[in-house]
Amino acid sequence: MIHTLFADHLSTKQIIHGAGLKSRYHHIWHMDEPLEAACVLLPESTQQVSTILKICHDRGLAVVTHGGLTNLVGSTETKENDVVISLERMNQIEEIDSESRTATVQAGVILEELHRATDSQELLFPLNFGARGSAQIGGIIATNAGGLRVLKYGMTRHLILGLEVVLADGTIVSNLRKIIKDNSGYDLKQLFIGSEGTLGIITKAVVKLVEKPKSRYAAYAGLKKYESVIQLLKHIDAGASGKLTGFELIWKNTYEQLTSASDAVRPPLPYDYEYYVLIEIQGAHPDKDIQLLEHLLENALEEEIIEDAVIARSQSEVDWFFRIREDVNNLVDFMPYDQHFDISIPIPEIGGYIARCYSRFRESGIATQVYAFGHVADGNIHLMIGKNDTSKATKEAIDHLVYQEIETLNGSVSAEHGIGNHKKAYLKFSKSDSEIAIMKALKNQLDPKGIMNPGKIF
Amino acid sequence: MIHTLFADHLSTKQIIHGAGLKSRYHHIWHMDEPLEAACVLLPESTQQVSTILKICHDRGLAVVTHGGLTNLVGSTETKENDVVISLERMNQIEEIDSESRTATVQAGVILEELHRATDSQELLFPLNFGARGSAQIGGIIATNAGGLRVLKYGMTRHLILGLEVVLADGTIVSNLRKIIKDNSGYDLKQLFIGSEGTLGIITKAVVKLVEKPKSRYAAYAGLKKYESVIQLLKHIDAGASGKLTGFELIWKNTYEQLTSASDAVRPPLPYDYEYYVLIEIQGAHPDKDIQLLEHLLENALEEEIIEDAVIARSQSEVDWFFRIREDVNNLVDFMPYDQHFDISIPIPEIGGYIARCYSRFRESGIATQVYAFGHVADGNIHLMIGKNDTSKATKEAIDHLVYQEIETLNGSVSAEHGIGNHKKAYLKFSKSDSEIAIMKALKNQLDPKGIMNPGKIF
Ligand SMILES: Cc1cc2nc3c(=O)[nH]c(=O)nc-3n(C[C@H](O)[C@H](O)[C@H](O)COP(=O)(O)OP(=O)(O)OC[C@H]3O[C@@H](n4cnc5c(N)ncnc54)[C@H](O)[C@@H]3O)c2cc1C
Ligand SMILES: Cc1cc2nc3c(=O)[nH]c(=O)nc-3n(C[C@H](O)[C@H](O)[C@H](O)COP(=O)(O)OP(=O)(O)OC[C@H]3O[C@@H](n4cnc5c(N)ncnc54)[C@H](O)[C@@H]3O)c2cc1C
Repeated sequence: MIHTLFADHLSTKQIIHGAGLKSRYHHIWHMDEPLEAACVLLPESTQQVSTILKICHDRGLAVVTHGGLTNLVGSTETKENDVVISLERMNQIEEIDSESRTATVQAGVILEELHRATDSQELLFPLNFGARGSAQIGGIIATNAGGLRVLKYGMTRHLILGLEVVLADGTIVSNLRKIIKDNSGYDLKQLFIGSEGTLGIITKAVVKLVEKPKSRYAAYAGLKKYESVIQLLKHIDAGASGKLTGFELIWKNTYEQLTSASDAVRPPLPYDYEYYVLIEIQGAHPDKDIQLLEHLLENALEEEIIEDAVIARSQSEVDWFFRIREDVNNLVDFMPYDQHFDISIPIPEIGGYIARCYSRFRESGIATQVYAFGHVADGNIHLMIGKNDTSKATKEAIDHLVYQEIETLNGSVSAEHGIGNHKKAYLKFSKSDSEIAIMKALKNQLDPKGIMNPGKIF
Repeated sequence: MIHTLFADHLSTKQIIHGAGLKSRYHHIWHMDEPLEAACVLLPESTQQVSTILKICHDRGLAVVTHGGLTNLVGSTETKENDVVISLERMNQIEEIDSESRTATVQAGVILEELHRATDSQELLFPLNFGARGSAQIGGIIATNAGGLRVLKYGMTRHLILGLEVVLADGTIVSNLRKIIKDNSGYDLKQLFIGSEGTLGIITKAVVKLVEKPKSRYAAYAGLKKYESVIQLLKHIDAGASGKLTGFELIWKNTYEQLTSASDAVRPPLPYDYEYYVLIEIQGAHPDKDIQLLEHLLENALEEEIIEDAVIARSQSEVDWFFRIREDVNNLVDFMPYDQHFDISIPIPEIGGYIARCYSRFRESGIATQVYAFGHVADGNIHLMIGKNDTSKATKEAIDHLVYQEIETLNGSVSAEHGIGNHKKAYLKFSKSDSEIAIMKALKNQLDPKGIMNPGKIF
C-alpha cells in the first residue's frame, strides 16, 4: 500500500487514503467525482515536501501536485496509483514588507487572502482573476496566470522575485531574496514559472507588491470597426500614461448575451454597435482621474473613434460594469455543453480572425453558440463555444475550427491557461519541433524518472 | 588555420584574421589592445550563424559572441584560439508594428538606432542607459540589461516577446511571434535572456514597445535620513500612479563630487543634506504632470520627508539634472585606478549597509575614494572605489569589503551587469550550491561540448 510509505514522516491527519479520497476531487468543477489516487498527502513544511518526493523518487511513484484545483486544462487530473501532494496546509503569509514592497508567502496561500493582507497595508498584489477565492499562489506561479490587469502589471512571471522549489529527487532549491534585480547567472525561477507541476514543487515565493491605487473608474464604449478598437487602445493608453489598467473587448453578440440574463447585468449601452470595450482606469487622485477618463472619451468621440460611451462613477456602477464581463455563466448556462478557448493572436489580426472563425462556425453548423471576448490589449481572446454533445469527434472538430489558423497567424493555443492534459495535441501549433525537443530535454534533466505530473504538457 | 574552415561559407570580407585582428578589441575601453582570437566572423544571416556554429561544434572550437562590447564584467574577453562571432552586420530593424506595438529586430541593431526608429512612430522602446550608442539588442538581451527606467518598465526580460537563437550545434530555434502572452509549455526564451553568450547566439528578437510619453520632468530633493528616502519613494510612487519613471539616490559625498567638475554639472541644491534623490516623471499632459510633481514635492516638504527640492522645467534643465547622475567620469577621472560594483540589497537594508561599507573602507585605508549612488527604487546600488594600484591583492581586498555582507543580507553581487569573467569567484554569495549545480546542468544540456563562451559565469 503506497500510503504506508509516508507513515513515518507525516501524521495520520496528513495522509488521506481509501474512503477518505471520496471527499477529494481533481477540479473544483468536478466535486461530485471522487479522486482517483493512491493517497493525498498534506505536507506542512518544505522539509516534508522534500521527504515525500525523496520517497516517491526512489520508488518511481508518479506525483501530482494540487493547488486550488481551478486550472482549466486538466493539469491536476490523476490516475489510481498517483501520489497527490496538496499544498493547502502550507498557507502562511510569512511576511509583508511595506518598505521592500514584497510579500513572502507559502505556496498554499489563497490569492484572495493575500489581497486582504496587502490591502490593510495600503499595498496591492496586482494579479486578479475570477478564481481568486480558491487559486493558490503556488498554482498561480505554476501556471503563470494572467488575468485582468496584465496590461499594466504583467503576468505572474513579472511579479515573482524569489522562489523556493523542491525538485523531483527531494533537493530543496531556495532563493527567497527580496531583491528586484539579480543578474548573477541564469534566472532559474523562470523555468518553474508556468511549468504546470512538471519540474518541481513550489513551496514558497517572494512576490512583488505595488502601492495601492486610490481611485477606480470604468467605462463602456461602443465602436463600429475593429480598426477603431486598436485606435482607441492606443489613444487611451497614450493619454492615460500608466493609469490604464484594463481594456477588454466584447463582440456584439457576446455583449447582447452577457447583458440580457438579469437586471444585475443590464446593458450600459444599447445594442447598436459591433464592438464594446470595457476600460478600467486606476490612479491616486479620484477627481483628476475621472476628469482624465471623461476627457479621453470625449476626444475619442470627436475623432469618431467611438460611437458612444458611458462612465461608471460609483463603486456599485463599476461592479455592475465588471459583472457583465466577468460572469461567463451568463454565456455557459444557456449552452447544452461548452468548450472554451484562450488563444493569443497579434493584435492587428484579431478582428479578421474572429470574423473568419464566426463564419466557419456558421457554415459548419457544429456549434449552438459562438461567443468572443477577451483581453484584447494583450492580444488574448477567449472563445466560448456551445455544442450539443460531448463526443470526441465534436470536440476535435471544434478545436480544428479554432486552431487551424493559429500557426500561420503566429499565435498561441494558450495565452494564459496552459497546456495541461487537454491541449497536448495542439502544442505543435504554438511551438516548433526544436522547441518541444528542448522542453523535453529540460524536463528529462530535472526529472529524469519522469515522476512529476507525468503526461501533462507533452 | 582555423579561419580557413569558414572560407566556403563566408565572403573574405566576413572573415577577419591575422593582421586584421589588430584593429579589433574585446571591449570599447580596451581599444588599444589588439584582439586575441583565431578569427572574427561577421555573419549576415541566421543561416550563416548556424553554419559557423556547426563547424565549430564538430571540431570543438571555442566561440565568443561579440555584440557592442560594452559589458562591464569581461564577458567578451577572448583567448588566442577562440572563434569570435560578431553580430555587427545583422543590424536591420525588420519591422516596427505600431498596432501590435512591437519591433522585430536583428541582434546587431544598436539601441540608439532602435530608439530613433520608434521615436518617429510616436513609440518608445523603454530601455535606456549610458552605452546606448554602442550596445546591441543581442548583447542587451544576453545580459538582461536594466538601466534608468526599470522602476516603471522592468528589465530587458520584461520587454522581450520573441527570440530566435542558434544553439551550440547550429540548431536554429525560432519563436518570433508578436504576441504578449504565451503559456504553451515552458518559456524557453527566459533561459537565453541573461545567459551572457554561454547557451546560444541570439540572432533576432521581437521586443515590446510602449506609447511615447509627451512630457518629461525631473527634480532633485535633499533628505536627512535614509528612512526618509524610503518614505519619499512610497509617497511619490503612490501619488504619481504610473508616471514615476526614475528614482535615483546619490549619497552626499558622491553628490559633492559629481557637481563640482564644471558648470555643466553645477549643484541644483546646496551641500546641506545627507542624501540627494533625482526624480523623473513622464506623462501625457505637460501642464498637469508638472503640477503633479510640484504638488507631491510640496506635500513631502510639509510632511518633513524632504528638506528641500528643485524642479527642472525646461529640456535643458532636465538634461543638466541627468548629466550630474550619468556622468560618472566626474568620479572616475579623479581616481588613480577605479573598481566598480553593481549590487542588489533589499531596499530597507541599503542605508545601513552603505554606512557600514563607508566605515569599513575608512578603517582599512585601502581606497582613495568611495562613492555610492544608484537605482534605489530597484534595490540596486553602484559603488565606485578609487585605489592606488591594480594588484590582485588590492582588488580582492576591496571585493571582500563590499561583498562580505551580500550573502547574509540576501542580496546579489550583480544586479544588472552579470558575472562574466570578473565576478565568477563571487557567484557563490548570490546563489546556492544547488542553484549553481542546476545552472551547470542546463549549460551541459544545451552546450555539451562547452564551446559557447567557455569560462564565463562559472
Ligand atoms: C473562474 C476562473 C477564472 C479564471 N481566470 C483566469 C484568468 O483570468 N487568467 C488566468 O491566467 N487563469 C485563469 N484561470 C485559470 C488559472 O490558471 C487558475 O485559476 C490558477 O492560476 C491555478 O491556480 P490553482 O492554485 O487553482 O492551481 P491548480 O489548478 O491546483 O494547479 C494548476 C497546475 O499547477 C500545478 N501546481 C499547483 N500548485 C503547485 C505548486 N505549489 N508547485 C508546483 N506545481 C503546482 C498543478 O500540478 C497543475 O499542473 C481561471 C480559472 C477559473 C476557475
Ligand atoms: C557607459 C556604460 C553604461 C552602462 N549602463 C548600464 C546600465 O545602466 N544597466 C545595465 O544593465 N548595463 C549597463 N551597462 C552594461 C551593459 O550590460 C551593456 O552595456 C549591454 O547590455 C551589453 O550590450 P553589448 O551589445 O555591448 O554586449 P557585449 O558587451 O558585446 O556582450 C555582453 C555579453 O553578451 C554576449 N552577447 C553579445 N551579443 C550576443 C548575442 N547576439 N547572442 C548571444 N550572446 C551575445 C557576449 O558574449 C557577452 O557575454 C553599461 C555599460 C557602459 C559601458
